Formats: sequence, C-alpha cells, structure tokens
Amino acid sequence: MQWIENSLGRKIPKEIDGRACKPFKGAFVDQGDEFMARRKISLTTAPGRINKIEKNWDALLDKLQLKSGMTVSFHHHLRNGDFIVNETMRRLAERGLKDLVVAPSALFPVHDSLVELIKTGVISHIEGSMNGRVGVACSKGLMKKTAVLRSHGGRYRAIQDGDLHIDVAFIAAPAADEFGNANGVLGKSACGPIGIALADSLYADKVVILTDGLIPFPCVPMSISGLNVDHVLVVDTIGDPEKIVSGTTQITRSPTQLLIAEMAAEFTEAAGIIREGFSFQAGAGGISLAFTKFLGDRIRQKGVKASFAVGGSTRISVELLNAGLVSYIMEGQSFDLEAVRSLRDNPRHVEIDPFISYCQHAKGCFAHMVDVAVLGATEIDLDFNVNVNTHSDGLLLHGIGGFADAAAGAGCTIITAPSFRKRIPIIKDRVTTVTAPGEVIDVIITERGVSINPRREDLIDRVRNSNLPLISLPQLMDEVYTITGKPDEPTFGDRPVALVEWRDGSIIDVVRQVLD
Amino acid sequence: MQWIENSLGRKIPKEIDGRACKPFKGAFVDQGDEFMARRKISLTTAPGRINKIEKNWDALLDKLQLKSGMTVSFHHHLRNGDFIVNETMRRLAERGLKDLVVAPSALFPVHDSLVELIKTGVISHIEGSMNGRVGVACSKGLMKKTAVLRSHGGRYRAIQDGDLHIDVAFIAAPAADEFGNANGVLGKSACGPIGIALADSLYADKVVILTDGLIPFPCVPMSISGLNVDHVLVVDTIGDPEKIVSGTTQITRSPTQLLIAEMAAEFTEAAGIIREGFSFQAGAGGISLAFTKFLGDRIRQKGVKASFAVGGSTRISVELLNAGLVSYIMEGQSFDLEAVRSLRDNPRHVEIDPFISYCQHAKGCFAHMVDVAVLGATEIDLDFNVNVNTHSDGLLLHGIGGFADAAAGAGCTIITAPSFRKRIPIIKDRVTTVTAPGEVIDVIITERGVSINPRREDLIDRVRNSNLPLISLPQLMDEVYTITGKPDEPTFGDRPVALVEWRDGSIIDVVRQVLD
Repeated sequence: MQWIENSLGRKIPKEIDGRACKPFKGAFVDQGDEFMARRKISLTTAPGRINKIEKNWDALLDKLQLKSGMTVSFHHHLRNGDFIVNETMRRLAERGLKDLVVAPSALFPVHDSLVELIKTGVISHIEGSMNGRVGVACSKGLMKKTAVLRSHGGRYRAIQDGDLHIDVAFIAAPAADEFGNANGVLGKSACGPIGIALADSLYADKVVILTDGLIPFPCVPMSISGLNVDHVLVVDTIGDPEKIVSGTTQITRSPTQLLIAEMAAEFTEAAGIIREGFSFQAGAGGISLAFTKFLGDRIRQKGVKASFAVGGSTRISVELLNAGLVSYIMEGQSFDLEAVRSLRDNPRHVEIDPFISYCQHAKGCFAHMVDVAVLGATEIDLDFNVNVNTHSDGLLLHGIGGFADAAAGAGCTIITAPSFRKRIPIIKDRVTTVTAPGEVIDVIITERGVSINPRREDLIDRVRNSNLPLISLPQLMDEVYTITGKPDEPTFGDRPVALVEWRDGSIIDVVRQVLD
Repeated sequence: MQWIENSLGRKIPKEIDGRACKPFKGAFVDQGDEFMARRKISLTTAPGRINKIEKNWDALLDKLQLKSGMTVSFHHHLRNGDFIVNETMRRLAERGLKDLVVAPSALFPVHDSLVELIKTGVISHIEGSMNGRVGVACSKGLMKKTAVLRSHGGRYRAIQDGDLHIDVAFIAAPAADEFGNANGVLGKSACGPIGIALADSLYADKVVILTDGLIPFPCVPMSISGLNVDHVLVVDTIGDPEKIVSGTTQITRSPTQLLIAEMAAEFTEAAGIIREGFSFQAGAGGISLAFTKFLGDRIRQKGVKASFAVGGSTRISVELLNAGLVSYIMEGQSFDLEAVRSLRDNPRHVEIDPFISYCQHAKGCFAHMVDVAVLGATEIDLDFNVNVNTHSDGLLLHGIGGFADAAAGAGCTIITAPSFRKRIPIIKDRVTTVTAPGEVIDVIITERGVSINPRREDLIDRVRNSNLPLISLPQLMDEVYTITGKPDEPTFGDRPVALVEWRDGSIIDVVRQVLD
C-alpha cells in the first residue's frame, strides 16, 4: 500500500478498495468535483391514483431486485430503539445476498447483531457511523473492505456528489401515506425529524418507506416527499418507543460537569457572544444540557433574545423556546419526547435536514450562522485537533455526527470535556484519530480552565479581563499527566480499517486495525 | 423546414432553432432521457457568518457577469402586480445585453413593456407563459426564435431534466433573510406560495433573491432555501400589493356560469365522486369559484369530509377548510389575500410546489391523487382535445398553467365553459391549438349539458339515471353553430412562433404566425 501525508501530517493510503484518496488540505481548501451525481429520471407512465403499498416483505424485496454487492442505506432517527436495520439485513441475508455495503447514518448498540453478518460475508463493510460492537469489529479488522466515517453534512455531500451511491434506501417512518409522503412527528413511534434520510430519498435508485403509522393522504408535514418514493411497506413496529429517543434529559449532578458547563456559559458571556439575536448550538449529554440551561439563565438576565438554537433538541431547549428566550429551534434530531411534541405543535420549532444545517457543498449552510457551538470530544491534542471517533485504546466507538460541520461553521467552537476520564487523559500530544483540525476549534474548556486557540486573538482579548481561569494546552496536559501518567499507546496494525472523511470528502485520517 | 406529424395529427417541425423536436405520442407514452440535468457543485470556501446582501443593482449585476444570449428566469406569483421582471429587464437592456432568453413561469399585462425589448433584440424569445401584448407580439412573429410554452409541471421537468438551463434566476420574495432563505407569506408584498421558483433555485447557475421584506435570519418558512441562493438584493418594492393577488373573489352573477357550475357539482355527486376522503381541484375564475361553493354545499349535505383541495386557492376554499369540510388545502398559488393569510396561519393550509403537484418525471405527483378537477378552456374539439392557449383568432393569449398536469392526473377531468363567447363557439371541429389531448379529458360541461368522453363508459354508466342533460359533442357543436355560424379561420403563416410542449417535453402542437 502506498501512503501519502495530508496537511496535518497524517498518513493516508493513496488508494484503497479502488478509491483514490484525496488528502485533507485544510478545512476550507475544497477539492470538490464540478458536478453533483446524475440523478436518474423517474417516469410516471400511467394515469390514475397512485398506491405504493406492498403486501409484505417478500413482495417488496422481489420488486427491489437486490443483488450482492449493492449498497443499502438507513437513517438513525430511531436511535437505540430501531428495529428496521436488523430486520431488513436479516431478510437480505436470508435471500443469500453477500458483500452488501451498508450505509446507515449511524448504528447503535441495538445493531450489534450485524457483527455476525460481517463475519459471514453478508456485509462487506459499513459506510456510516458505528457505535458499540460493530465499531469494535471494524477496529479488529473483521470487515472485508474499509469502512468510511462521514459527518452528517459530509454524508449528505457524499450522496449528493455521487461518492456514495445508494441502490436501495430503507427509510423507517413513524407516519406515512400510501403515496410515500412521510414524517417523524406523528404515530406511535414518533421520533421527531427524519431529515437525515433526505439525501437517501433524493439520490437512491430505489426508495422504500417502512412505517408502522399509515395515515390517509396527505401525510403532512412531508419531511420525505412521496414523489421520490417507490414503495411503502406497513410493518407492525419500526422500533421500541421507549428507546427511540434515548438522550439524557436530566441535568447532570456531577460537580465537574456542572463546573465545566458554567464556565462555558461564563465564557460565552465574557466573549460578548450573548447579545440580541445571537444563536447557539448545544446537543444532548450532561455538559451540553447544563450549558443550555445556564446559557438560558444568562439570556434572561441580560434581557436579550437569541434568534435560534440549532442541533439536536431536548426539554431544556424547548423550555427556552417556550419562555421566549429564543425565537426558533432549528432541529435536526430530537433527543427526547418533549422535543418531538414541540416540533409537532410549535411552528417556531422547525425541522431541518443535514443539507440545510451542515452541507459544505452548497452556498453556505446554517452551521455558519451559529455564533457559538458547544461540543464534546474523546481526545484533544496540543494543536487543538479533536478526536470524537476513537478512544485512547484505539477502538472505533463513536460516529462523527454533526461534529465536523458544526465546528467548521460556528463563529466560536467550544469543546467541553473533563480533563481526564477513568485515569485516561483527554488531552494528549497527538490524538489517536483526527476528526476535526485545530483550525476550526477555538476554545477548550475543562474543569481546569479555559484554553483558547492562539489563532483567536480576538477571543483572548475579549475575555482577558474576566475571572475565567485561562490555561494553555501544554500546561493543561502537564497537570493531567501528573495525575494520570502518560497513557499507553494501543498496538496498531498497518491496515487502515476506516477512512475518516472531512466534510468535503478528503481524508483527514484513518483508523488503524487494533491488534489484540 | 421539415415537418413531422405527431399522434394527434398535428404537424410539428422536425428541428427548430437547433432543437430536435420529439413528437407527442400519447399522454403517458413518456420519452424522457435517462438522467436529469447535472447540477454544478457549489463550494463554501470560508468559515464564518454568511451575508449575501448586495449593496445595489449595479453591484449585483456586476457580480452576475451576465452575457448576451444567456437565459434569465422569473416566477409569476406577484401576477399583474409584479415590478421585478420589468425592472430587471430594463437594467439588463441598459447594460447592452442582447438575445436574452427570458424564462418566466408566466407574464401578465403588466409586462407589456417587454414587447419593446423584443423589437430591439434585447430579448430573443420567451420560454414561458404569455398573456396580453407579449403573446400577441409572439403570434405576429416578432421574436427572433421560437417561444416555448410549458405547463407548470412541464416547466419544472424541463429545468430538472436540463432542457431549460437557466443562467440566472431572479426570484422576487416578499420576505427573505440575509442568507437567502425566502417565503411569500410574510411582508408587505405577501403573495402566498413562491414555490414556482423552486426549480429555478435548485438548477440555475446563479440565484438572486429580490426582496422588499428583509427579516432577521431565519426566515421561516423557507419556501426557497438560502443554501441555493447566491445573492440577496433589497429593493423598495417588488410589486403593487393591490394587484399582486388579482383573482376574482366574488361568486359570479352570470346565470349561465352559475348553471354550469351547478351542473358540474351535480355531476360530481351523481358520478359518486363526493364521498368520505375524496379530493378536488378547482381554480379561480367565475365558474370555478361557484363550483367550489356548490361542491361545499353538497359535501355538507352528504355529511362527508374531503381529504384535500389542491390548486390556486381563494376565500371560498379557505371557507371550506375552516368549516371542516376539507382536511387540507395543498396550495401552489394564492389568488386572494384570504388565501395568503390562511396559508400563513393555518397548519392545514400547506404550500406545495410544481414538483410536488405536477411533475411527470417523478414517482407520481399529487395531480394523480385528485379525484375531480374542474378546469376552463378556450376551445374544445370533437376528439375532446382542449385548447387553453390561443383564441379562435389564432392569437396566443394564455399560458398553460397547471392545466395539462391537472387534466392528465385527475381521476375525472371536467372542462366547464359557456358553449360560445361573443358569438365565438367554444366547440369546434378542430381546435386552433391542442394544449391537452382528448385522452385526458373526461367531461365537458356547458350550459347546454354534459358531454362525457366515450372512453369513460364508467362515468356514463354512473350518471345514466341522474337528471343531468347529456349531450354529444357533435350535437353540441351543431346547436352552437346554428347560433354563431361556422367561425372564420384566422390566416396563419407557415412559421411556428411557439412550441406547445406536453408535460414530458414532447411537442403536442405549434402556434403559427398570425398574418395581418
């Protein structure tokens, strides 16, 4: 295998699985092609009413004419409650299909059974985010070909531009009509937006809606348009409602996390970001939820109003909307049922998709309109490079999500994290995997203080007179290493098991096989 | 010029202006290409907040780098109140541009000044609907090249498939933000939907939003997504609010029109179409408004509820929605301010675009989900072919609008018209121009009775025992000719001045030059 170095000094293969790899050259040094994927024209060849409902799975699968080696896709809005990926893949395996490329937006522990299909050759590899045992299987080198990790915006781009061609998209939908219009806010399995499937619906050769909530035409809102749908299959259940929306909805009680969240809110105010019409992004998870709450308190105290909050939403952001502290929630994913209800009922709670929120191959995207984004990380290095994919043991355990997109777009990107976890330092000389380059990371906040990227002299100036404890990354690393010791490096093999794509499709890093 | 005959016996040129003409072969004998237009990839090449507002017209036009021979497009949602087409074209003329192809979705009498630009060679020809003096100028042979008439769905298809490539789309928007998100329901010039510009925004090389209603980001709803927009120009006014929504909102007092409308409603009931969950389309204009009202009365009497009404909407359809007689209005155009307000405020009044409502090159469209469509016409012939474009004097005076799409899709297509107008019979041996073939027209209703297409034996059976006066088309023509005499034929030259495209891009007819 021939290797080349990208601009971060990471070695990437020149070519792998027949794909020429473009080395990452910078967050906005774009290397896009000139044209998007050519979309096949669909023809409506008969007059009269249209009903796309298939009798059963076998009738559906017969019509799809799937072949070994094809690419099938799924979305992850049902999260750890999803039944559709396992059910579909089991049926494809039963039909004797092999070497399938599975392109989910993300997999969760509920999908651990796919490991067996990887071992038996039904699945060649995954192009999508992996959590849990499938990620470990990838790390151990069990996949025939190289997995590909993409951010939400990067996945949209790859499908739009033709890098990821989907033969059949299987779209789980809590509500749908016989024409194929679908949404995620109605029905017993309501999960909020289903916009991550938008690209799949537009660009896949065949599009299937799988629903347990058939309603009369027209299914409004039409998050997925029936004009792009070939078949509708009604199933008993698309998922377990208890687990569909699985984000943490309780504010953390951890003093460390609360301290970090409070410092992030204080930084945001000290940096002059909290002002009339500003905007923010913060997801679920302990620190983010607490940050959102503390930010809300400061918005109220200052007597201003945020124009919008973006990203996965929760009870906490809905409370801010209802209290009139933000004008709009622009929502890509719901992390709890309060958010789902609000999205359904409040016209100021608006569903958006990864094209709108995150796509780099567009005339801007909403990530650029966000003044401050607060995000987590597994590792950070002295160049402010961030890893959200692998742990320090080298295992691939997380997807990119919207991380790279949000970090690249936001006016101020803050990484919040404890300085070590279980005696594993979060700050290192060199991250195991680079998910996002330091050039898009502005601030690191741990319980030991605030580290500002030297590139952002403006931010350093603005918080100089605050009471915030500033700390340089080398100093932070020293302090942490004093407690944890210098961490052991995992034993990697040479084989790249996964490519980590930057938003534009260039390769920012590879994940290497972890040897036992 | 070489001529060929299409399946309706209409002579069409084999090639014109370098374009090979596909002869129409049948409403659903589709002759589409395999792939849609290739879309250029747009790149976001810098971090940070995005503001697309240009200082003034000159700054905007400098950046657009327009050249002679390019194609510029406009939408017609501002109807006869639009200021943008004239203003833009005047400025392009001042810059010395020539041979521009103008691709509006439609022109109105307010755009009569374009005739001068046609005469001086600034405009080569129009690809779009023409009303008034521009249509007459086309008929008289004043355009350098051949105009092209397309239905709303046909226009979307042509842009999507690459038959109509737009260099710069100028999109008038009653409300927009600095990022380029736009809608038509907010602002002083609110006109309702602006979805006819969707195709332009997706496929034009450059997209400009012209607005007199700049609002803070995010402009919600996002009928046009800023991700497809290059520039935003704030202007004093995009149109005359008095004339923006110019449809008739009063029920006709004409006894003939009322009789026809009542007969259409009675037919709909007799044919068993009015039942729980049925759907209908009826536009503005005297007969259609009265039909909608009478239909509403019958829906109430039967104690059922329509699932949806589609098409341009008015106070009358909004009343049906508010009274709970229809579940949804799916709206492509607003014809009065009551409809604009309802679209803005009522979540059951839903904006749709010509892709959703009418596009043949998709996996079905909503026109197919309509049980009965009531449409007007200028002429009908004994084969049930319908003309909505030219008058009997041969002059091109109307666009196709959604006519061809609605007629092709609906379960039952009813044409309502008086049997003659100003001593000009509506029924003829042979229509001057075929807009839609008889195979998609089911019923003709004039004040003289109901004529059912013999192909629809099912409809004939269903109304056999009703009190409706049935009349064959030959008998109807005889009766009318007795009053009007056989109409004179206009004197046509050989030159085709306009191609009439069927929804799939094949040529169903040509409009010939009218000699003085």
